[in-house]
Amino acid sequence: MAQPTNLTRIGLAGLAVMGQNLALNIAEKGFPISVYNRTASKVDDTVKRAKQEGNLPLYGYHDPESFVKSIKKPRVIIMLVKAGAPVDQTIKTLSAYLEKGDCIIDGGNEWYENTERRAKATSELGLHYVGMGVSGGEEGARHGPSLMPGGSFEAYKYIEDILLKVAAQVPDSGPCVTYVGKGGSGNFVKMVHNGIEYGDMQLIAEAYDVLRSVGKLSNEELKSAFSEWNKGELLSFLIEITADIFGIKDDKGQGYLVDKVLDKTGMKGTGKWTVQQAAELSVAAPTIEASLDARFLSGLKKERVEAAKVFKSSGLDEILSEQPVGKKKLIDDVRKALYASKICSYAQGMNLIRAKSIEKGWDLKLGELARIWKGGCIIRAIFLDRIKQAYDRNPNLANLLVDPEFAKEVVDRQSAWRRVVCLAISYGISTPGMAASLAYFDTYRRERVPANLVQAQRDYFGAHTYERIDMEGSFHTEWFKLANQ
Amino acid sequence: MAQPTNLTRIGLAGLAVMGQNLALNIAEKGFPISVYNRTASKVDDTVKRAKQEGNLPLYGYHDPESFVKSIKKPRVIIMLVKAGAPVDQTIKTLSAYLEKGDCIIDGGNEWYENTERRAKATSELGLHYVGMGVSGGEEGARHGPSLMPGGSFEAYKYIEDILLKVAAQVPDSGPCVTYVGKGGSGNFVKMVHNGIEYGDMQLIAEAYDVLRSVGKLSNEELKSAFSEWNKGELLSFLIEITADIFGIKDDKGQGYLVDKVLDKTGMKGTGKWTVQQAAELSVAAPTIEASLDARFLSGLKKERVEAAKVFKSSGLDEILSEQPVGKKKLIDDVRKALYASKICSYAQGMNLIRAKSIEKGWDLKLGELARIWKGGCIIRAIFLDRIKQAYDRNPNLANLLVDPEFAKEVVDRQSAWRRVVCLAISYGISTPGMAASLAYFDTYRRERVPANLVQAQRDYFGAHTYERIDMEGSFHTEWFKLANQ
Repeated sequence: MAQPTNLTRIGLAGLAVMGQNLALNIAEKGFPISVYNRTASKVDDTVKRAKQEGNLPLYGYHDPESFVKSIKKPRVIIMLVKAGAPVDQTIKTLSAYLEKGDCIIDGGNEWYENTERRAKATSELGLHYVGMGVSGGEEGARHGPSLMPGGSFEAYKYIEDILLKVAAQVPDSGPCVTYVGKGGSGNFVKMVHNGIEYGDMQLIAEAYDVLRSVGKLSNEELKSAFSEWNKGELLSFLIEITADIFGIKDDKGQGYLVDKVLDKTGMKGTGKWTVQQAAELSVAAPTIEASLDARFLSGLKKERVEAAKVFKSSGLDEILSEQPVGKKKLIDDVRKALYASKICSYAQGMNLIRAKSIEKGWDLKLGELARIWKGGCIIRAIFLDRIKQAYDRNPNLANLLVDPEFAKEVVDRQSAWRRVVCLAISYGISTPGMAASLAYFDTYRRERVPANLVQAQRDYFGAHTYERIDMEGSFHTEWFKLANQ
Repeated sequence: MAQPTNLTRIGLAGLAVMGQNLALNIAEKGFPISVYNRTASKVDDTVKRAKQEGNLPLYGYHDPESFVKSIKKPRVIIMLVKAGAPVDQTIKTLSAYLEKGDCIIDGGNEWYENTERRAKATSELGLHYVGMGVSGGEEGARHGPSLMPGGSFEAYKYIEDILLKVAAQVPDSGPCVTYVGKGGSGNFVKMVHNGIEYGDMQLIAEAYDVLRSVGKLSNEELKSAFSEWNKGELLSFLIEITADIFGIKDDKGQGYLVDKVLDKTGMKGTGKWTVQQAAELSVAAPTIEASLDARFLSGLKKERVEAAKVFKSSGLDEILSEQPVGKKKLIDDVRKALYASKICSYAQGMNLIRAKSIEKGWDLKLGELARIWKGGCIIRAIFLDRIKQAYDRNPNLANLLVDPEFAKEVVDRQSAWRRVVCLAISYGISTPGMAASLAYFDTYRRERVPANLVQAQRDYFGAHTYERIDMEGSFHTEWFKLANQ
C-alpha cells in the first residue's frame, strides 16, 4: 500500500462504517491519517474509498506496529470499536507500541465508568485517555458529527484543530465540539444525549399515533403535517426524516413502507443506562422512562396480539369514545403538545447531566452542551438554540421549565397539550410520553403535592418521622395509638 | 444475666427495634433464643422487655463468643443489622466462633448480589447462608411479619418450624412464609415488594389528591371514603391506615395533622433498585417509576415553591378548567381508577420477578409469593388473594391483565379510570401513577403500536434494520436516497 512520505498526524483503529467515515472525514479536512483494523480487508476497503472520494491522505496498515509507528509523536489514535471487551483488546494491542505522552481516544458509546477505569490504567503507562461521544450516525461521521470529548485535556488540545474542522459546522454558533470535562464526562453526556433521543422519538411516535388513530390522517397528510412542522419551532433532523418516511412507498408491495414495518423497536444500552442513572441520582426522568418502557412493550408483540384479542372479546373497544375531531385543529394541538412535552424531556436530561456533574465535580456547562448538539447529531434542532439561550441567561437555572421564555411557551401550549393527552386517553390509545411530560410539569410547578400523605403513611408503619410545614424539626406520631384510643 | 439451662434453639444479632421485636416474637412462640448486640445496652433492654412481656425464653449476651456458643448445633443466627458494611462486619464477628454446618440468616433489606457474594464466601467456611426479606415494620416483626427467605434450603429446613409460627397467620392460606428460592431470591422478592409498596402509596396519594383538590372533600369526608373503600375490593393495610391518618388531629395546633406534614417523601434504596432492575431486565414498570419520580420531585420543595410563583404570575391557574363535580360519583370513580391502576402496578412487579427468576434460574412461584404477602407485610390486601388465584388458574400467565377475572375488572372500571385521569389533567394536577398505569394498559392490550415509526427512524439514520409485518427477515431501506431522488 501507499505509504506517507512523512509521519501522519493521527491514527484511527476500527474500520466498521462509523470508523471508515470518520477517518475519511478527517482526511478530507487535510489531516493525513493512518488507519488500522484487525480484519485486513476493512483496511483495504477504506484505502480504496479514500482514493475514490478524492485521493484523500489516508494510509492503511495491516499490522498494529507499523500503524502506530506511522503516526507523528505525540501520537493520537481514535478507536471506533464495539464498547466493552473489544475496546480493552484494542488498547492492549496498541499500547504495546505506544510511548509515553501518546493519546488514546475512544469514540464508541461506552459506559463512562469503563472510560474512567481505562484512563487510570493507561495513565500508569504515561498515556493520555479521552472518552469521546460521537453522534450523527454514519452520515454525521462522514460529513460532520457532534463530538463530545471528555477526559485528558492535554490530549484534547493536541487534536483540537482537527476536531474543530471535522465536527459539524453551525453558522451562528461554530463547530459542534467542545471539551466536555474531566473523567468519563464525554461518554456520560453522550449517554444522556441518547436518552433524550429516545424521548424525542417516542414523543414523535405518539404525535403520529394520535394523528393517525384519532385524526385518521393518511400518510400523505402526515407527511404534509410534519413538513409544515419542520418550518417552525419543531424544526429538527428527526421531524425532517419523519416527514420523509411517510412519503416512501413500499418496494415489496402496495402502499407505504411505514405501514409494513413491524411495530417492534430495538435498542442498545444507552437509554437503559440513562434511566438507571436518573434513579441513581434521584432525578425524575419520566418522559425518558416512558420511551424506554414503550420500547420494552413494543418488543412483546406476541403478547400484545393475544391481549388485544382478550380485550376485544370483552367489548372494550366499543366502549371507547370516538367523538369526531377536526384535522386542522388536531394537527395544531398535537404540534403544541409535542413541543411542550419536548421541553419537559430536555429539562429532565439536562438536570440529569447537572446532577452527575455535581456528584463528580465535572463542572459541565449545560449551555455549551446544547450548543454542540445544534448540528451533526440525531437530536439537532433549532430548539437547542433556545436551550442554549436559557442557560446563557441563567447558568444556574434550576429547570428549563422556569426559564421565562420556556415558561411562556408552555403556558401558551398547555390547553392544547391537555386536550391531546385526554383525547388520546378517551380514544383508548394513551400517550405515555406526553402524559408523563405533562405530569412532570404539573408536579414540578406545584407548591403542595400529596407527598404529605405518603410521608404520614411511612411514619405510621415504619416510624420514618416527618417534617412539618409550620415549624422546624423532625417529628414522629403514634398514629395507630391515636387512631385507636 | 439469666443463662439458659440448656442451649437455645436460635440466635439473633442486631437489636434495633426490628431485631428486638423479631426476637421477642420468636421467644413468645416458645423457641428459646439467644440475643446479641455490639452495644450492650440494647441487649439489656431486650432482656428487660422479654421479662415484661411475659417471662419469654430470651437470653442476652454481651460478647459474641458466648452468644454463639449458647446456641444448639447446627447453630442458626438471624442478623438484623443495617444493609451493607455492617452485615459484613457482623458475619466476620460471628464466623470466628461458628462451625461447619451452622447457618447465617440476613433479615435486612439487602441488595441481592451482596447476599450471593456472602453466601459464596461463607460456604467456603462450611456455613449455610440465607437472605430473608422481612416485611411488616415494627408491628409485623413483633406479632407476625411476612417472611421471604431465599438461599440455602438446608438452613431454611432447620428453622422452618420456627418461621411457620413466627410469620403472620392468614386463616384461609396459612403462615406468610415460604422457601422463596435459591441465591439472593429472597432479597430480590422483598425489593420488588417494596417497589410495589411505592406504587400503592403513590396511587393512594393521587386518589387523595383528586378527592381533595378536585372534589373538595374534607379530611372527615376523606376518612369516611377510605373507611368505606376498606370494606370492598381495596381492603388493605395501606387503605386502613390512610383512613386512620385523616382522622388524627394536630397535637401542636389547629386542624388535622396530615395537613401539617411537609409534602416531602423520604426513601431508602429498594424503590430505586426496583426501577433499575426493571430497566436492566427490559420490563416496563411505569407505575413504579412514576412513584419513584414523585418522591424525587417531592424532595424539590424549594424549587416547586419557586416554580409555582413563576406559573402563577403567568396566569396559568386561571386557564385551568374547574367544572364542578359531584362528590359521590367522584369517590366512586376514583375508587375504580385506583383499583385498575393497582392491577397494572402489580402486573409490572410480578413480571419483573418472573424476568429475574428466568435470568437466574430461580424457578420462583408467583402465586405462592402473592400468598405470603396476604398477611404481615405492608402491601397486605384482599387483592393479593385474587392474584394468587390468577396464578393458580394459570401459572404461566403472561400478564395479570389478561387473566379473565382481572380483564373483566379492568374493563368494568376503564371508563371511570379514564374520567379520573382526564379530570385531574384538566384541573392541572395530573395523576402520574394512574396515568402511567392507564398508558401501560392501553399499550399492552394493543396489537399495533406506533413503534413501526421509531424503528423506521432508527433504520433511516443508523441502518439498524427492521422487520416487516408481512414477511420474514431483516430489512434495510435507503430512506434518505428514496426520499431525495
